Amino acid sequence: MKGPAVYPGTFDPITNGHIDLIHRTLRIFDRVIVAIAPSLRKAPFFTAEERLEMAREATRGMRGVQVETFDGLLVAYVRRMRGVAVIRGLRAVSDFEFELQMALMNRRLDHAVETVFMMPSEEYTFLTSSIVKEVASVGGSVKGLVPPAVERHLKARYGKKTRP
Amino acid sequence: MKGPAVYPGTFDPITNGHIDLIHRTLRIFDRVIVAIAPSLRKAPFFTAEERLEMAREATRGMRGVQVETFDGLLVAYVRRMRGVAVIRGLRAVSDFEFELQMALMNRRLDHAVETVFMMPSEEYTFLTSSIVKEVASVGGSVKGLVPPAVERHLKARYGKKTRP
Amino acid sequence: MKGPAVYPGTFDPITNGHIDLIHRTLRIFDRVIVAIAPSLRKAPFFTAEERLEMAREATRGMRGVQVETFDGLLVAYVRRMRGVAVIRGLRAVSDFEFELQMALMNRRLDHAVETVFMMPSEEYTFLTSSIVKEVASVGGSVKGLVPPAVERHLKARYGKKTRP
Amino acid sequence: MKGPAVYPGTFDPITNGHIDLIHRTLRIFDRVIVAIAPSLRKAPFFTAEERLEMAREATRGMRGVQVETFDGLLVAYVRRMRGVAVIRGLRAVSDFEFELQMALMNRRLDHAVETVFMMPSEEYTFLTSSIVKEVASVGGSVKGLVPPAVERHLKARYGKKTRP
Amino acid sequence: MKGPAVYPGTFDPITNGHIDLIHRTLRIFDRVIVAIAPSLRKAPFFTAEERLEMAREATRGMRGVQVETFDGLLVAYVRRMRGVAVIRGLRAVSDFEFELQMALMNRRLDHAVETVFMMPSEEYTFLTSSIVKEVASVGGSVKGLVPPAVERHLKARYGKKTRP
Amino acid sequence: MKGPAVYPGTFDPITNGHIDLIHRTLRIFDRVIVAIAPSLRKAPFFTAEERLEMAREATRGMRGVQVETFDGLLVAYVRRMRGVAVIRGLRAVSDFEFELQMALMNRRLDHAVETVFMMPSEEYTFLTSSIVKEVASVGGSVKGLVPPAVERHLKARYGKKTRP
Repeated sequence: MKGPAVYPGTFDPITNGHIDLIHRTLRIFDRVIVAIAPSLRKAPFFTAEERLEMAREATRGMRGVQVETFDGLLVAYVRRMRGVAVIRGLRAVSDFEFELQMALMNRRLDHAVETVFMMPSEEYTFLTSSIVKEVASVGGSVKGLVPPAVERHLKARYGKKTRP
Repeated sequence: MKGPAVYPGTFDPITNGHIDLIHRTLRIFDRVIVAIAPSLRKAPFFTAEERLEMAREATRGMRGVQVETFDGLLVAYVRRMRGVAVIRGLRAVSDFEFELQMALMNRRLDHAVETVFMMPSEEYTFLTSSIVKEVASVGGSVKGLVPPAVERHLKARYGKKTRP
Repeated sequence: MKGPAVYPGTFDPITNGHIDLIHRTLRIFDRVIVAIAPSLRKAPFFTAEERLEMAREATRGMRGVQVETFDGLLVAYVRRMRGVAVIRGLRAVSDFEFELQMALMNRRLDHAVETVFMMPSEEYTFLTSSIVKEVASVGGSVKGLVPPAVERHLKARYGKKTRP
Repeated sequence: MKGPAVYPGTFDPITNGHIDLIHRTLRIFDRVIVAIAPSLRKAPFFTAEERLEMAREATRGMRGVQVETFDGLLVAYVRRMRGVAVIRGLRAVSDFEFELQMALMNRRLDHAVETVFMMPSEEYTFLTSSIVKEVASVGGSVKGLVPPAVERHLKARYGKKTRP
Repeated sequence: MKGPAVYPGTFDPITNGHIDLIHRTLRIFDRVIVAIAPSLRKAPFFTAEERLEMAREATRGMRGVQVETFDGLLVAYVRRMRGVAVIRGLRAVSDFEFELQMALMNRRLDHAVETVFMMPSEEYTFLTSSIVKEVASVGGSVKGLVPPAVERHLKARYGKKTRP
Repeated sequence: MKGPAVYPGTFDPITNGHIDLIHRTLRIFDRVIVAIAPSLRKAPFFTAEERLEMAREATRGMRGVQVETFDGLLVAYVRRMRGVAVIRGLRAVSDFEFELQMALMNRRLDHAVETVFMMPSEEYTFLTSSIVKEVASVGGSVKGLVPPAVERHLKARYGKKTRP
């Protein structure tokens, strides 16, 4: 293998769809770095530290996975980590267009950075971090949609409002 | 008929496109419940009470229509009302993808809840609550786009800024 | 119930995605008519008779389902059958646009015909009659993708070419 | 020529993709008015004055180009300027749908206003004002993506945070 | 005006959506050339001569409109006619992508040829030459969808099969 | 490296967009197998032998590239070649949906086959084998769009019709 893959995102929080994609990436790459961006403009729900902690707990025991936070330009980070590819998941057309724009921008910023797109299992087609928070916020169960660590964090945050 | 249809949304405010869809739903279902979500995360322009009042006034005299607010999970509400279907309007591809994600999520949360999509009249293809507010905010006329009750509320809010 | 739903298509051949959609339709409508169009312009792989036979066998024992062939205008057929809605499945954006065009055309031809879109189970997102024929034509197994009657017909047609 | 084209937008800030589109518009129209909307709801990054100044500097010396700010309804502004067409750039499907909705709304508000869509050079397919700000905010170079005046303004704003 | 607009297509047959677009083009350009491509690969339903005749009859009396057939490269034809723009209608996302690819290809073949996209009236959103033929082929009425000359030609072709 | 990537397609004919994608694949994988499908249903313009010959000539001297034809199921071929990923290029939304359907179908047929999507250079966004043939058929130059070997083959086929 020529170098690790870098899987960047906000991971606010990490879902089972992300985990599925990491497993798929490991079929092709020996190592994958899950790279958590601060994404302050999006006003994330969880702090970068919480997101890091949840992602690390969720990937514990997966060989070849490393979870980090980064800031600054993604392409600079990838170069620093000697990454050979940026991994992005594709589910829907709207994802697709934004992802293509970002990938072209990254290519423009650094021609050596190649983006590869992978497809999560179809049972996760509908699954986004936003929908998870939406469901949790109105008291719905997110069991099976997120790793146990995330379930716990969501409960801690929304617990008071939850109803049976 | 096996039970009512539930037509959920923010209705901020209800437009003639929504009214058109309610009429179409009544061709198939004996009863439709217009279910107004608080949608606090979207920071709605009108309060839930105002939205309820406008929707009730706009549907007054339509047989089989009931307007309510609800909170919590949509699927729990549908089950409580013994609804057999969730109604959603489709206009554009971007609607479509988000709607499919939500419908799949709702199906996952409660397998008994079926979402059916209907199409407003093509003269309302471009009509969204956001565009109505955008036009009203810069002093444009929204006559024919929204029910009279909504026109009145928009004028009350934006009236001072309106110019000839 | 105000009248039956009509589910038109080429059904060349009927797949488990179609069957799934029929089950979902029956949650809302008491009766559904599966209406097989000759679709001669598409040069179908199976004759209308074969498609009818496969669809009947696949829906045998499902209460409220009737399978017929029709020709001429869909809206005329729906009117003749006193149908209250046309059912169409939506999976992908490309489906969606074509379906919307057809639905608007049908509405233009007969204002009383309402089209209702439903969503198959996500495990059938990828499943089309074309892909089934593609896979069968190169000797792949279509078990679980189509009803047993269709599997048999496909084997009869492609059997000679199949390899282990 | 029957009248000027009006090219409205937020231009927060103007990019080389916008400049490219202005050049293309000038092949067809003798005059183009770049019309900067306040867009207060979008909470723009630069003030209307800064955006005006940058757009004027970037188009200095281009024959037939006039840069203005406007408020109120776009269609009212176009009529006041005796414009014959509204120019919009199309890059991606998501652009396309929103643009079509706006164009239909504008047509509804004033039947005389025709919207014309043009395509920037493919090297700018990925280029949006948002992506430019995103890159600048994490210290990336936007040379070649924006006019020099914009580069300067971005540096002034983000300069402290930039790293080598 | 710098030169005529060229509106190319197969026009098999010309519809009221095309006529609507020609009217809109004339608001911006003094002259428009409707340029009928032979499109032999598409195996058109009407001959080029029939298509020319129907388009000429449908645009008779419209000032500034010229109808021609052409073959060879569109960009070479545009240059020969001293055209300043190629006009294309946009209705749906699927149109959009194909149109963008063709426009980029034409730009690559001749940098001086600019494509501009316009939007037909929303009442023609669903209207394509294919759908018109589909409806006529099963005996449906296409009144109001196509000019009278086309209605006559379709009847002559499909007349025998039509039923009340 | 865990195994080769397989890049399947009709390659009718191979274009510079395909060549660009092969170069990008080689940044990630040590070996890539260009796998030409007979695609008889598409009635290809060039025979499988011609397509093989053109692709081999176009990739001569590229380390790690192997060009083959295959028939039968793609997933069976990938398994036979011990491939770890199927490579597909993404340019447009319409590509995207079809590609996702095929990728899900292949995953269903063999869970070990992962599909990876990559993006050609934006200068090839518009470039498809169909558009190349379209241009060549009306006498346009395809220089810079296809490798020299393909240019030669296209000239041989269309040469008689070409005009200056």
